[in-house]
Amino acid sequence: MNTFGKIFRLTTFGESHGEAVGGVVDGMPAGIAIDAEFVQRQLDRRRPGQSLLTTARKEADRVEFLSGIFEGKTTGHPIGFIVRNENQHSQDYENMRDVFRPSHADYTYSQKYGVRDHRGGGRSSARETICRVVGGALAMLCLRQLGISVEAYTQQVGHIALPGDYTDYDLSQRELNPVRCPDAKVAEQMGELIWQVKGEGDTIGGVIACVVKGCPVGLGDPSFGKLHALLGAAMLSINAVKGFEYGRGFQGLHERGSQQNDCFIPDGQGGITTSSNRSGGIQGGISNGRDIYFRVAFKPVATLLMEQTTVDKAGNATTLRARGRHDACVLPRAVPIVEAMTAMVLLDCYLRNKTISL
Amino acid sequence: MNTFGKIFRLTTFGESHGEAVGGVVDGMPAGIAIDAEFVQRQLDRRRPGQSLLTTARKEADRVEFLSGIFEGKTTGHPIGFIVRNENQHSQDYENMRDVFRPSHADYTYSQKYGVRDHRGGGRSSARETICRVVGGALAMLCLRQLGISVEAYTQQVGHIALPGDYTDYDLSQRELNPVRCPDAKVAEQMGELIWQVKGEGDTIGGVIACVVKGCPVGLGDPSFGKLHALLGAAMLSINAVKGFEYGRGFQGLHERGSQQNDCFIPDGQGGITTSSNRSGGIQGGISNGRDIYFRVAFKPVATLLMEQTTVDKAGNATTLRARGRHDACVLPRAVPIVEAMTAMVLLDCYLRNKTISL
Amino acid sequence: MNTFGKIFRLTTFGESHGEAVGGVVDGMPAGIAIDAEFVQRQLDRRRPGQSLLTTARKEADRVEFLSGIFEGKTTGHPIGFIVRNENQHSQDYENMRDVFRPSHADYTYSQKYGVRDHRGGGRSSARETICRVVGGALAMLCLRQLGISVEAYTQQVGHIALPGDYTDYDLSQRELNPVRCPDAKVAEQMGELIWQVKGEGDTIGGVIACVVKGCPVGLGDPSFGKLHALLGAAMLSINAVKGFEYGRGFQGLHERGSQQNDCFIPDGQGGITTSSNRSGGIQGGISNGRDIYFRVAFKPVATLLMEQTTVDKAGNATTLRARGRHDACVLPRAVPIVEAMTAMVLLDCYLRNKTISL
Amino acid sequence: MNTFGKIFRLTTFGESHGEAVGGVVDGMPAGIAIDAEFVQRQLDRRRPGQSLLTTARKEADRVEFLSGIFEGKTTGHPIGFIVRNENQHSQDYENMRDVFRPSHADYTYSQKYGVRDHRGGGRSSARETICRVVGGALAMLCLRQLGISVEAYTQQVGHIALPGDYTDYDLSQRELNPVRCPDAKVAEQMGELIWQVKGEGDTIGGVIACVVKGCPVGLGDPSFGKLHALLGAAMLSINAVKGFEYGRGFQGLHERGSQQNDCFIPDGQGGITTSSNRSGGIQGGISNGRDIYFRVAFKPVATLLMEQTTVDKAGNATTLRARGRHDACVLPRAVPIVEAMTAMVLLDCYLRNKTISL
Repeated sequence: MNTFGKIFRLTTFGESHGEAVGGVVDGMPAGIAIDAEFVQRQLDRRRPGQSLLTTARKEADRVEFLSGIFEGKTTGHPIGFIVRNENQHSQDYENMRDVFRPSHADYTYSQKYGVRDHRGGGRSSARETICRVVGGALAMLCLRQLGISVEAYTQQVGHIALPGDYTDYDLSQRELNPVRCPDAKVAEQMGELIWQVKGEGDTIGGVIACVVKGCPVGLGDPSFGKLHALLGAAMLSINAVKGFEYGRGFQGLHERGSQQNDCFIPDGQGGITTSSNRSGGIQGGISNGRDIYFRVAFKPVATLLMEQTTVDKAGNATTLRARGRHDACVLPRAVPIVEAMTAMVLLDCYLRNKTISL
Repeated sequence: MNTFGKIFRLTTFGESHGEAVGGVVDGMPAGIAIDAEFVQRQLDRRRPGQSLLTTARKEADRVEFLSGIFEGKTTGHPIGFIVRNENQHSQDYENMRDVFRPSHADYTYSQKYGVRDHRGGGRSSARETICRVVGGALAMLCLRQLGISVEAYTQQVGHIALPGDYTDYDLSQRELNPVRCPDAKVAEQMGELIWQVKGEGDTIGGVIACVVKGCPVGLGDPSFGKLHALLGAAMLSINAVKGFEYGRGFQGLHERGSQQNDCFIPDGQGGITTSSNRSGGIQGGISNGRDIYFRVAFKPVATLLMEQTTVDKAGNATTLRARGRHDACVLPRAVPIVEAMTAMVLLDCYLRNKTISL
Repeated sequence: MNTFGKIFRLTTFGESHGEAVGGVVDGMPAGIAIDAEFVQRQLDRRRPGQSLLTTARKEADRVEFLSGIFEGKTTGHPIGFIVRNENQHSQDYENMRDVFRPSHADYTYSQKYGVRDHRGGGRSSARETICRVVGGALAMLCLRQLGISVEAYTQQVGHIALPGDYTDYDLSQRELNPVRCPDAKVAEQMGELIWQVKGEGDTIGGVIACVVKGCPVGLGDPSFGKLHALLGAAMLSINAVKGFEYGRGFQGLHERGSQQNDCFIPDGQGGITTSSNRSGGIQGGISNGRDIYFRVAFKPVATLLMEQTTVDKAGNATTLRARGRHDACVLPRAVPIVEAMTAMVLLDCYLRNKTISL
Repeated sequence: MNTFGKIFRLTTFGESHGEAVGGVVDGMPAGIAIDAEFVQRQLDRRRPGQSLLTTARKEADRVEFLSGIFEGKTTGHPIGFIVRNENQHSQDYENMRDVFRPSHADYTYSQKYGVRDHRGGGRSSARETICRVVGGALAMLCLRQLGISVEAYTQQVGHIALPGDYTDYDLSQRELNPVRCPDAKVAEQMGELIWQVKGEGDTIGGVIACVVKGCPVGLGDPSFGKLHALLGAAMLSINAVKGFEYGRGFQGLHERGSQQNDCFIPDGQGGITTSSNRSGGIQGGISNGRDIYFRVAFKPVATLLMEQTTVDKAGNATTLRARGRHDACVLPRAVPIVEAMTAMVLLDCYLRNKTISL
């Protein structure tokens, strides 16, 4: 299943070293002005080679829209798009044709499908996330009109964590440093750690936090389609993600109900709000109008520039050392992916909500 | 969307104080012998009133199958079932008709739908999980034939956590105490904590861990349908769940790639295995044949037997104190729900896998 | 797949001689007043034993709603319902346990599933259409508010066809005779034919025509979800249906484009209409505001009260003569089923349409 | 919804005068050798400009596969493909920018979406069917391995109909004439009629018949997913289709049940077959192993090279005369489209069938 969403639906295709990656966005509302520069800017945030901290691969990653847009506006018809693969060094992977890279999808894909495109991980490559960023950027064009913002940032790299929560920072600052952490000083420490780990041929993971502001009350469904379940599934579908929590998550386990409950209070304008937001903006699976916030754990990249023991297709023990250009830490480039997936979930829920009443 | 799954599909309905909860299981394989006692036993594990630690409500929760079974075996047709609601004390909720319970779905439901069944939380009641347990039990009848086991247990209550991981315990022991923790001594401490919190009119959360053994290689999809994304969505759709992690999750953030990677080794029988299982049995979103393990964070129950400030429908500040019979900690009763959701995800993936080749 | 629809979704279950048939309606808009008498009246129109022309089986077919309705209005949550099976004569089918009835689903079900509930056709019984009538009646409660009407009628039985088209009759008259034909005289001829065929132990088919008035412009999708494709699929999913046509259908094959095109004209009120309606109210797969009309061909019922040659499970030639109470012509009872399926398609399209713009 | 199918899923995009049409095939079984020439040959059968009888537009319609194929075989991952639009004469449509073409989608699209790409019908153009032919060709590569054949042919053009049924002809002969009718003499008459109608600036419709041989028992679902309902929906989703019938369809309305029933008989090899095949190879919605046959009615093309009265966007009466290169009869080019849609339905059902048992 390479389709995501119910009403706003993204279908993706493409392998790392094939002709192109691309997709189809179906269910995009009609009449939305396409800000092509904005879409490309999101891709640029995901692009390799942005800084010394990321892989040195140089890929332009230019998106080409093929349909669904007429005279600058969406028509309500499916938007097909492709991003050509360029600058691939397939020979970097020739030694992986018959060998399974540890903690990669090589073995499971081989067993599941009986065939495998070994070049750059094929379908399992994070290049697939390009399509998510395009879909997410289109969703954001809608959310912008609705006054909903989505901001993710690097909150932790290895043992270095941002001490405060999102309310303590000016999140726009995250774009001023290559790590995408809103605190310049902590960002520098994180960058140094990544640089050090990279030098050792090793890799490191961390946490991306995400905040949604301006979300209306009512998004999400009561049972299987709870808003946080949809967000969690979206995050866990991103390469290297190992955990998801929202509100107090795993962090408030020692707290009592009386400490976690958010009491309702008049908002002073005839409406209702809560005196605290430990719920993370979602109650009973449905957004309550407060900020939605959640955290996403990323494991260290599996590709190491050091020798690892493994096994070849014939079942013989062997060793493997990756060649080529790889990220030592994916978090800086994963920030726009987290935002993109979040945007698609929110827009999908928003559109579905319109069908609740006649 | 009250339907879960792609091939094996559970659709549920029902409110806490309506006539019945129930559902339809579509896509159940044909020819499976129905062990009705087994299904009822799973329901009994979820049932209120099992022990002093859980709510004192007495509900028999007898499942009645209405279709899809002929002479003791499944026919391949949809299995309709209902569980009648009995012993409801709707009057316990009369004071909630116009008041929003803190951190419950009352406010968000009201805003989303414009109407709300205030009795016992209506559709947001955890009674809906009865249907999940029935669906899961049917799935387990299939998994049993495939040699796949699913075992969840209470791993943490408040600050009291089981020190070891699942390999350190005989998980069958979890059924010998009311907390469903496989270590009798820790279970007793957890029970005492729950009892104490209950006495204070307060509530407490914790962590349920789950282990899948015997899972074949190949379950799960490459992109949006990664096995852990499906499991995560399933868990996050359970009432009160705030977080999900698998493998090293949030716990291995300080580790390097060289510490988290699982190296492949010959399994000594002509096959391949890994020398460690930090990945949690899933690589590239697809099961690799090793044990699958994950953790689920539950927040404290929102219903407190103490006064809380809140707001009524008209927007006036007021206070609320729950009456009636409530759980101070849902974890013991949530263990079979976690297992049920896991079983449905696995069977669905297993069945979908059959369509990969001609 | 026992689910119908995308937003307004009906999931059904149940066999002829099981405990009950029933279903779940998910996606019903919130706040709709439930007119339970109206729903029951639709079931009564489908019920056996209405007249001498239909089967003599006496089934009350009382629908019991189990959820999703609170204080007389829909809550936006799934509506579970059941209709108990009563007055079954399972012994009438004992001789069919090991024999395949000609042109029934007995053989194909056996081969597909390996098991079969032989009593009354099991899942293949037209009793399943009870659930469709309930779902359709709920949909009609919504369509009524939108000013959309759906009227089907018996247009042909055997060789006896109503000469004019729907504009030539007062369709409300169809309910005044047991055949459900709006022309009393033709209805009488049809009734006589059915009576004669019944006396011979044989059966007869015909055509049900259906008209939708008041449908807004814009229902239906451009490519795979064309409105007439959805209507066609809905009709072809009804037992015994062999064909579907809309607009000029198979009847205008000798006509040129210049004879079939509907030219646009000003409607005199600042809007646009067409000078003719050969398209049947749908252009490019989307409703154009004119009456939608289509025709549905039903084959003669396969159950004959005469001896037929067949084969038993072991592959031996044998003969079979049905016992019990059967319809010689299903059309009178199928009229409300055609209306129900139409209503569900229209409401589903209407609700989906709300997601086209932000 | 621009996605077709449940397991084998085709998602399409593209407008007539945009950059390209294309799509994604998801759920294609892994390990299937791609016969690119075969795929292109199917496209060539649909291509304009094949003969004097079809539109004079010259489009190469070369398919470019972008993913999902590695070293000549499918990988089980989504197959993205595009077909560039070339040789468009957008200026031919400039006079349609503000005018609604009679019996086209212009008016309904404008009303539904608020915007419209007027060039060549935009998304409503039959160019979209290119993607269906590609998807169908991929499905056929699988069906070939399963021994299932799909053959459609032009059975009627205007009043000229092939007198016999499919068993009376060598269907391979249909490719020897531009009309795609298996009887050379009738084909010539049909061709003359098309030529005559074309000369008058008018258009003509007809019937395409289709036969499936070698289909195993068991494809199709009992209730909403009956095989003929899926086939019917597939056919009715093709541009200009107005009707669908299978088996005796609308043609056997005067017949009794005793005349339409297919009696079971031993097949002489220990199996079971039927003595006749009036059911059209489907019983109870499920294939019974006999040939499946059905008929599809196409209306005359709506684009006429003669003046028609219509209305402009502002609601003023006006006239319109199409310019450019258009088909006077779509049937010859629609034959491969009917085959393609049929192939996709069959493969999807075949794959779904694999999930019935453990």
